[in-house]
This record gives sequence, structure tokens and C-alpha cells, in this order.
Amino acid sequence: MRQRIVILGSTGSIGRHTLDVIDHLGSRCSVVGLAAGTRSEVLAEQAQKYHPTHVAIADASGFQHLCGALDNEATLLNGDRGLVELVEKSDCDCVVAAIVGAAGLPATLRAVELGKTIAVANKETLVTAGSIIMPQAKRAGARLIPIDSEHSAIFQAMRAGHPSEVRKVYLTASGGPFRTASIEEMRNATLDDALNHPTWSMGPKITIDSATMMNKALEIIEAKWLFDLKPNQIEVVIHPESIIHSLVEFCDGSVVAQLGTPDMRTPIQYALTCPQRLPRSSEPLDLVGTGQMNFHAPDLDKFPALRLGHEAARRGGTAGAVLNAANETAVELFRGGDIRFGEIVELSAQVFERHAFVAEPTLEQLLAVDRWARSEVNQCVIC
Amino acid sequence: MRQRIVILGSTGSIGRHTLDVIDHLGSRCSVVGLAAGTRSEVLAEQAQKYHPTHVAIADASGFQHLCGALDNEATLLNGDRGLVELVEKSDCDCVVAAIVGAAGLPATLRAVELGKTIAVANKETLVTAGSIIMPQAKRAGARLIPIDSEHSAIFQAMRAGHPSEVRKVYLTASGGPFRTASIEEMRNATLDDALNHPTWSMGPKITIDSATMMNKALEIIEAKWLFDLKPNQIEVVIHPESIIHSLVEFCDGSVVAQLGTPDMRTPIQYALTCPQRLPRSSEPLDLVGTGQMNFHAPDLDKFPALRLGHEAARRGGTAGAVLNAANETAVELFRGGDIRFGEIVELSAQVFERHAFVAEPTLEQLLAVDRWARSEVNQCVIC
Repeated sequence: MRQRIVILGSTGSIGRHTLDVIDHLGSRCSVVGLAAGTRSEVLAEQAQKYHPTHVAIADASGFQHLCGALDNEATLLNGDRGLVELVEKSDCDCVVAAIVGAAGLPATLRAVELGKTIAVANKETLVTAGSIIMPQAKRAGARLIPIDSEHSAIFQAMRAGHPSEVRKVYLTASGGPFRTASIEEMRNATLDDALNHPTWSMGPKITIDSATMMNKALEIIEAKWLFDLKPNQIEVVIHPESIIHSLVEFCDGSVVAQLGTPDMRTPIQYALTCPQRLPRSSEPLDLVGTGQMNFHAPDLDKFPALRLGHEAARRGGTAGAVLNAANETAVELFRGGDIRFGEIVELSAQVFERHAFVAEPTLEQLLAVDRWARSEVNQCVIC
Repeated sequence: MRQRIVILGSTGSIGRHTLDVIDHLGSRCSVVGLAAGTRSEVLAEQAQKYHPTHVAIADASGFQHLCGALDNEATLLNGDRGLVELVEKSDCDCVVAAIVGAAGLPATLRAVELGKTIAVANKETLVTAGSIIMPQAKRAGARLIPIDSEHSAIFQAMRAGHPSEVRKVYLTASGGPFRTASIEEMRNATLDDALNHPTWSMGPKITIDSATMMNKALEIIEAKWLFDLKPNQIEVVIHPESIIHSLVEFCDGSVVAQLGTPDMRTPIQYALTCPQRLPRSSEPLDLVGTGQMNFHAPDLDKFPALRLGHEAARRGGTAGAVLNAANETAVELFRGGDIRFGEIVELSAQVFERHAFVAEPTLEQLLAVDRWARSEVNQCVIC
């Protein structure tokens, strides 16, 4: 049966890779919905090519452009509400949640409520609202399948045992562009420095998160929710070659890992076809060519984001939402030249420490805490 | 339900490790049969401890000793026929096939015919008689579960996909004690040199096979039968640290590997409990402590056994039986000081090339070819 797919965030890095994979999968998939934030031109091109029944754009002027540019019969939707409507109205089986940041939350949550399969590339959704989404997914029978290479690796490796047999997971981290930099060098790193990721080609937000290792901190929180783990079952290991995407240690001492060339299309395709695997003409892993893999413990003084990640995973409740929103805002400020690189995590930590924690928040409370954290970070900079 | 276990080769390295695992598993297992070649004293001690219903020993004088030493009610069996009777008469669920060399073949084949679960540590059985055993296992509903760390790794990693989705398997090899030696140094290596394995503590035959890499050659043939692979789907990679026990590349480009500390009890326990995994208080894998893993291509001029392995896997039929028997005899001659280290593979290759190949042999033909190869190797030395 043809799988009907909605892509939330189709013009971003993951969205475009997802369309590549869908091209490759041919008649197995059809695109029934596409959504983007602002890039209306790219979105219009995609809509002309894939003929979705629904197209949504968050940005108002983008919507105007889209209305003029599209000559097919797709229903056009606008605003944050438009993303939710896209999920509701397009008759889809699978929603690829690839909108960067917390903006994808309401639409993803709606897909969960409707019992869809969610291919989760948007890690902020679970980081922010894992405490609401996971029980809701259970009630509605929604399946959450990770696209993030680390979580996809864990998801795949866990097939070699039963979830109850997992002792520990190891999230590998490349260490980012500042793995060998001094704390002082990092503090004053430029935007170009931070965007110069050694192994993965990704969007700017996630690349900067990789430089602070906040990306890994958010992955700790995501892993806790996705795989129902205790934070002390999740360990981060620096592995500069990014060949082993993550590892699962089972209770019998066996460790199962997933490896591959750094290509997001591999976990995207697996998310769309699993438990089946379909041929891909990808560059095969060349172990001999790789020659060497290295592993070392992360320096928590240099990457304090990791401590925040574990702490947020331990606390649960609103902690992930605050950390995510504070970081997202701080990254925007850094990208705008308003703060130094080192201040991204410093500001996030300050706001994280100050927030009024709620253990079992409602969605409204989560969204309120998200707004509060954003405003607090901006406030810190103005003062 | 308590699993009733027979161990063929209980006094050897794998046999004793299996008993350790059974001790650990407690009431889940009972030992109903024990068999050994010659070590009657160790066998008698084991029988006193585990109270099997049947005990078999191949050696005649060992049988005499056993009759005197055992005061419990176990039925004592003797000779090659005794091993087969042990499998027939003890009411067992699982047979651990751990007799080194081809001597375990008839008893293992009997266990297959009786539809037992066979935990295969004795790789020579499949290398010699894979063409008979695999179809017989299918007919009788016997399950073959590998204990060899490499094949156990493949067996575990394959759970992350479907057998039809496997593109390739990578058998890792430590490279043995002569990984960095010159061809000349290897040719004249002493027995002590050859027994000095860098990572695994194993019996002498398999340790010498590891030094010639004939062990890996036999593993190629074993993998072909166990996992129904074509020889060109099986690649050997030198990995001196022996942390990754083997890898499976799936058709979608994903590679799944099993890793662990070098401890045979991990694959033994998995063979006895799979698909379940039960806790073990094993030394956990310390990736950070390991620090580095290296990979390189094997030098086929230095380790010509690997070419023989691929060739035997490609030919099938009697080829594996000849290679195995020739090698086993040559290793005995080397251990007895009758040939140089370098001659082990040279003689095996000569006899392998000369043999009258049969594509679909009967068991009698396999046993005849086995005897022929042994006599040919001995003949070569006398001449």
C-alpha cells in the first residue's frame, strides 16, 4: 500500500533529504502535504513537483507569494494554525516532523492525537513536550520513529533485544568544530567557526547546537522519552569520526551499534520503511578506508550543556521546554551577533536555573514556560 | 521450563565456559549429558558436580578411569559411538557442540536429525558437512545457534533486519600474534609464538588457526552455511582490538555491529537463552578506556589461508571438509614439531588443490575425503 506522507518543514535540510528519499522510493510513497516556515519559493517548487493535496506556510507574506505561484489544485493554509490543519485535513499515514525548534509542536501533537506514524526529526518536540506526547501516543496508538541519526541508531540496535533488556545507551558525538579548542577559544568563536561542522552537513541551528553540544544535551532528553530510559542509562561518548551513530548495551553485556557513512537519507529512509529495509545506492561504509575510530569522554567543563541535558532529563516536567526555548533564543541572538558563542550555554543555564519548575505540566503550561524562557534570555541581553 | 543441556566437549575451553554460564543461569538449565575426548579426570569431576544422566568419553583408557571414578548413577558411554548415543539417549533440548575438530561431526549430525537446538561452537562441523547439515536442519526443525564470537555477532546483528535484507557481512579478525610479523618470521615461528594470542584466551588448536588465519578461513565457510550467504558477501577485516566482533551491512546502507569485551561467556549465554537476554555481571565494554579501534585489510600474501577459505566457500561440496581435515592434521604435525609454522597452510593448500571434488557429497563421501586429506598431509611430510 502506498504510504501517504506529510512533511512539516519540507524546505529545510531534513525536509529536502526526505523528498530525495521519497523520489528514490518511487511508487511506495506519495506526498500529500508540505509545510514550511518562510521559504515560499522553494515550497512552491516542491508543490509543483509532488502535487500534495495541502500546502501550508507559517509566514504571512510567504502565503501571499504562494497563492500567486501555485497553479495546481492544492489547498493552501497559513499560519501556525495552518500547520495543524495540514495534519488534520490531508489524508496521511505518516508525518515527518522536521520543523526546527518548538514551532512544530502543535502540529506534531495533533498528528500524535490522530494516531499517525510520526517520523521525528524535530527533536525539540519531544524535548519540550515528551511528558505529554509519549502517554498520548500510547493512548492514540501513534508510532514515533526517530530520524536523528543517533536515535535511529538506538532504535535499530534495540531490535537485537527487548527494550526491557537495555542496560545503557551510548550517544556518540562528533565533538563538533570545537572538540580540540580551548575554553577561551570557544567563548569568542565566530558564527563561521561554529557553522564549520567536521562531519555532518546540517541546518545552521543544529550545527550551532552541535558546537555547544547542546544538541547532544537535547538528544539525552529525547532518548529518555523515546526509549523510556532513566537519565543515568544514557551516556555521551565523543567519537570524532561519526561512524558509529550510537550503541545499545544489553543486560547480558552485549553491545549492539549502528554504523554508516554520515548521510541523513539512511535514517530517513529507515523511518519511512521500517521494519523493512529497502535497497539504497548509498556510499557503503568503508571500514578499512576509515582505518581508525576514536572514543573519549566529553569534557563537561568545556561543554556544560551536557550537564544541563542530564539535569533536564532527570527533572522531566517543564525542564526540557525551558532548556530548549532558552537555547533556541540564545542561538538566534548569537546568529544575530548579539551575544558571544560562550554565552549561548551560559544564558541557557541561568534561565534554566531560575525557572519555576512544574512536574506534570499541561500543554498550556509548557507553552507558557517556553515563552517565559525566550523572553528571559532576551531580557538578560538587554540588561 | 528448565532447558536440558548436553555438552559435547565439556572439558575443553568452550565446554568449561559453558558450565560457568550454566552455573550463572541457575535453575533455568540442567546438564543431562557430558562428553569429552580424553580428559577423564576433569570429566569425572564435572559429572560429580552436575549429575548428568549420561556421560561419554571417546578414549578407551579414559573410559576405564571414568568407570572407577564415578560413584553416581550416570550411564557411561564410550568411543565415537558413545558420543552419538549420548545425544540419542539423554533427554535433551539443546546440544552444545564444542568438540574441536571433525570428531564431533556424527554426534552433532544426530542432534540435527533429532531436531534439537544446537549451540555450535565446533565450527568444523558446518565447515565439513554444511551441505548435509543445513538441509537436514530445515527438514528436522533443528535450530543452529552460533557460539563463535564472530558468528554470534552476525546472528545478533541480523536481528536488526531480515536475512533477505543482508548485503554483506564483515568478519573481524584480530590478526593473531603475527599481524605485524614478516612473512619470513611467520614461516619459522615456534609453537609458543603461535600460541601467544593477543586478545582471546582459547584452546591450542583454535589459537594456532588464529595465527595462520585459517580460523577466519573456516569462519568464512561457516558463515556461508549458517546465514545462507554467497562467498562474495563475506569480507574479512583486521581489527586488532577485537572489540567489534563482526558487522552486518544491510541493503539500505545501515551497518549493525555487535561489540563487547572478549569473553566467550557472552555468546555462550546468548546461545543458551536467545532470543531472551539475561543479566550477566560481565565486565562492561569500556569504549572510552578502549580509546581507539583500528581496521585494515588483511594481507592475502601473508595469510593465504583466507584465499583458501573463500575458494572453499565458493566451491562448496567436499571443499570445506578437505580444507578442514588437511589443516587439522597439519596443525597436529606442527604441534608435534614435525613441520614448520609456514607449512601448515602450504600443506593444506597442496592437498586442497589435489583433491577429487564432489559437489553434492554423501556423509560417507565427506568422511572418506576427510580421511584422505589427513593421510595426504601425513604423506607429504614423510616424503
